This record gives sequence, C-alpha cells and structure tokens, in this order.
Amino acid sequence: MFAITILGNNSAVPAFDRHPTSQVLTLPGRNFLIDCGEGTQIQLIKYKIRRSKISHIFISHLHGDHYFGLVGLINSFALLGRQQELTIVAPEPLQEIIRMQLDAAHTTLCFPLKFITINCSGVLMTIDGVEVSCFRTDHRIECYGFVFKEIEKLRKLNIDAVKATEVPVNFYHHLKEGRDYVTPGGSVIKNELLTFPADKAKMYAFCADSRYDERILDHIKGADMIYHETTYLDTFAEIANARFHSTTRQAGKIARLAGVKKLLIGHFSSRYDTLEEFETETREVFPDTDLALEGVSYLMP
Amino acid sequence: MFAITILGNNSAVPAFDRHPTSQVLTLPGRNFLIDCGEGTQIQLIKYKIRRSKISHIFISHLHGDHYFGLVGLINSFALLGRQQELTIVAPEPLQEIIRMQLDAAHTTLCFPLKFITINCSGVLMTIDGVEVSCFRTDHRIECYGFVFKEIEKLRKLNIDAVKATEVPVNFYHHLKEGRDYVTPGGSVIKNELLTFPADKAKMYAFCADSRYDERILDHIKGADMIYHETTYLDTFAEIANARFHSTTRQAGKIARLAGVKKLLIGHFSSRYDTLEEFETETREVFPDTDLALEGVSYLMP
Repeated sequence: MFAITILGNNSAVPAFDRHPTSQVLTLPGRNFLIDCGEGTQIQLIKYKIRRSKISHIFISHLHGDHYFGLVGLINSFALLGRQQELTIVAPEPLQEIIRMQLDAAHTTLCFPLKFITINCSGVLMTIDGVEVSCFRTDHRIECYGFVFKEIEKLRKLNIDAVKATEVPVNFYHHLKEGRDYVTPGGSVIKNELLTFPADKAKMYAFCADSRYDERILDHIKGADMIYHETTYLDTFAEIANARFHSTTRQAGKIARLAGVKKLLIGHFSSRYDTLEEFETETREVFPDTDLALEGVSYLMP
Repeated sequence: MFAITILGNNSAVPAFDRHPTSQVLTLPGRNFLIDCGEGTQIQLIKYKIRRSKISHIFISHLHGDHYFGLVGLINSFALLGRQQELTIVAPEPLQEIIRMQLDAAHTTLCFPLKFITINCSGVLMTIDGVEVSCFRTDHRIECYGFVFKEIEKLRKLNIDAVKATEVPVNFYHHLKEGRDYVTPGGSVIKNELLTFPADKAKMYAFCADSRYDERILDHIKGADMIYHETTYLDTFAEIANARFHSTTRQAGKIARLAGVKKLLIGHFSSRYDTLEEFETETREVFPDTDLALEGVSYLMP
C-alpha cells in the first residue's frame, strides 16, 4: 500500500463543500498526514481513516489553511487516550503555537509529542523503508514540499531454485541484496538464477504551495506521482505569480519536465465553483493528470 | 429578532456529525457569535448565516472545543476583505494565541480587531440596546457564561391619541420614556392615555461549561431562555462532577430555580450517539426544555 487520500483540496477559504489542504499517505502499517487544515479531524472521521495509525504529520507552511486543524487533532488524540508517539514536522514557530494552546487549556498529553523543526531542504528521516525529505518552494512565507521515497527494495528469493542448490540459509539475505553465490568448489551461481527482481520502489512528492519554480525539479524527478497546486486557471497567471501560486499549465509543465508518471492537482481557489476546466487545461500540457478529489485515494501508478 | 441559532452541540471530540460548541445570537442589524469551535466557519456557510454581520465574538473559555475555529474565521474575514471592526471577548491568553498565528502567516488584517479580556464577572458593554454581562462558572479552567439582556424598551406612541392633544413633537421622546404631559394651562395628561406599553425586554443566558452551581442563579434569574450544558445523562452524575460538567437533571434544576421560561440543552458527550434521552430526562425536571439542535433557530419565548 502506497496511496494518497485527499481530505481537502481547496485554498484559503472553505467553499463549495471543499475543505482546506490535507492528505493522508497510506503506507504498510502507518499513515503520514500531510498538512492539516481546519476540519481535518472531521474529514478523517468522514472517510473512515484510522487516526491512531497516523504517526507523523508534515506541515508545509504556516498559512492557516494548511495547519489550523492540527491543534484540534492533537487535542482529540489526548481526549481519546492515544499512547503512541506523534511526530510533527513543520517550520517554526508551530511548536510554540501548539504549546501555548495546550497550556491555556491546562492540557497534559498522555502521549509523547515530538517536534522536528525544518528550516532548509534535506533528508528528514528514514522510517519503515521510506525516506522522507523536504525542499523549499517559492511561496509568500517559508514553505516546504515533501518527498516520500521507498528505499531500494530487496530482490525476492526464488525458493524452488534456491532449494535445488546448496546455498546455506544464512546467505539468503545476500541473495536478496543481489550477490551471486560461490560454491565451496569455486563455481559461481548467478544471482538472477536464484531470485526474482525486487518490486519497484515508489516515490511521491507533495509540492506544497508555490509559484512556478523549476528549482524543485531536482527534488521530484523520477517520482511516480506528484501533487502540485493549481490555485488558478491559466488566464490568472499574473495573479498567480503575484500571490505566489501556480496555474494549471504551470503544474503540467513541472510534471512534464520532472518526467513523473502522474500528476494530482489541487488547492483550488474559492473563485471557482466547478473544477472540470482545471483538469482539461492541465491535461493539455500533461495528459496523465487527475483532480485531487476529496475522499478519493490515488494509488502510485 | 432576538433568536439563537445552534452551530455545534457536541462536547470535546466531534462525533456523530455533531460539532463543537458555537451559537449565533441574532439581533436587529447584527449577530453575536458565542464560542467558536473548530469548523464554525463551515457551519456558518452551511446554515447561510451572514458572517459579515458578526460584530462580536464571545469565547467562554480556552478549551479547544470552544475556540479552535476562531483563528480560521478571523483569517477568512481577512481573505474576504472585511472592513468593519471585530471585537473578541475572551479570557487570557487568547489575544496572544491569535496574534502569534497571524504573525506566523505574515497576515496583516484589513479590519480593526479589538480584544476585550475578561477576568471577573460583570457588565461588559451595552450595544444597540442590549447589555452584555459575564459571570464565572465552575469549570476545570477559568470559564464564563454570558447574559444578553435588552435594556428596558421605550413605550410606543399612540399616535391618534397624541395628535388629538397639543403635545409638542419635541416632547414625544419623554412620552416614550413614560412621562406625563403637563399642558401650559397646568392640567396633566397621564402617559398611559398617550402611549402603548413597551415590548417586553428579552434576556438570554449562555451558561457555558459548568458543574452544577447555584451561584449562577443570581445572574440568570428572569431570563426568557437559557442554554445550559448537559454533557451527561443523570446516571453519570459522579463523572460529571469530577469533570466539571453537568447532567440533564442538574440543568433542569437550574432552569427551574432561576424561573426561566425555556431551557436549551447541549454540549453532549461523544459517548452518546442519540439524544432523545437527554430531552426526556431534563423535561422530567423542567418541562419546557429543548435539545439544542444544529442548524435550528430558537426564538425567545
């Protein structure tokens, strides 16, 4: 499982039953929450996503439509008796903002709350075989995209083939790493006779809020899927630029230049009551584009 | 118009499509918002309440389910270009919490945001003929109820009767205040011959979160309608007391002792998926009780 579920696809002000930014990356055994606009905890209930499986929350930047739901979610975790650690990854001063609100309520959390403050691009952590890194985007305030990349997976044993040889069990993990086996007599059994290729490692990039900026390409190249904001249709390119946002065609161009397989678009301005045109315009530049629709899960292609 | 509309009637954690506390008091020409749990701005849109008419927001206390929606609403006011002043009435340190979040987003508000910090019971303001006061309740943290009371209204001129006399126009406002008219010849025309009685002044009390506490009676006596929390059914009286909350029968008793006309109950615990029993139990003590249902407006009786 390596899928992204959209909880909110609107920008700034809630409108037309669209909610502020939030999405869940589902991995085997855990969920990562990316951004947490107001009402995210209600969206999690609505779409039956198990809140207890969220181990990390990544906040791109401190515009309210990307984090105003965080303190409520943390508060609910406390009221529901959560015990496992929760890690928040975010720019400053989010830790202080959360702390002040917990203090005002005299709330003592019953679980460890860990903050990782980001202030530059780089690798953040590797967890359960997934490397997470962040990169700066070109937004009105300090803002980061996030890349979630499975580290190279191991080859799979061809059990029948292995058992027909004299390879000892304690060499199996070397086979999975791709090594050939040399018999005591000195003859070589090529690895590809004993194993099947590894599953392809998946990669997802959340490009956060940003102006059109080709500097992000180095970070997202080769992703299976990226999410890129399209706050505006292309007729509003000037406004988009002035407000540090992107348009349909700009997102499509980023996806094309990065050579990704699939593009998800979202963060739609409240000036638009329907979204079809976003899809149409972006597909003219990058055909494999989907609207990020709330409640829908998108598997890595 | 002097009506209360419920936006959220649940306590603590959102559940069963019930939202955290918020209600709107609709007055002629303006709205007062009372508490502002997460998602209040979305509830305002859902129930088509004009956000621009909200001039004052009263926050009872700093448990998240009573104010986590405030910063998002303020932020949306800014994004929507609001210009008229907004006044927030709340305990400390709400002003600092809001300021930090606006600063983190580099947000400059396009309207005056005024804070009134409350730290004791008393009269807060008189505005458009409505006096607002607050009173301490017995909760785990500093918490206030609010009373909204129309000041005595003016008597209404009996135009036909007045025109049949020689009362000069510049004396009309004295007639409305209840004064008799003395003619230049020295004879007295009794006021009740020239005016009709004033409409009855209305009074609403929001009793916030509280344990059962008869000390609030002095503040709410004579109200047309009060809202009192009933977090639990009566079987949970001990838990209610330990958690600084009230039960059905306790709310009913407060309403009865205060001699009010109508009782609204809310702030239901997430342990209950249905609410009928709340109404039944409370009505056994105070028959004129209604559940505070989301999206429903209750006129003063």
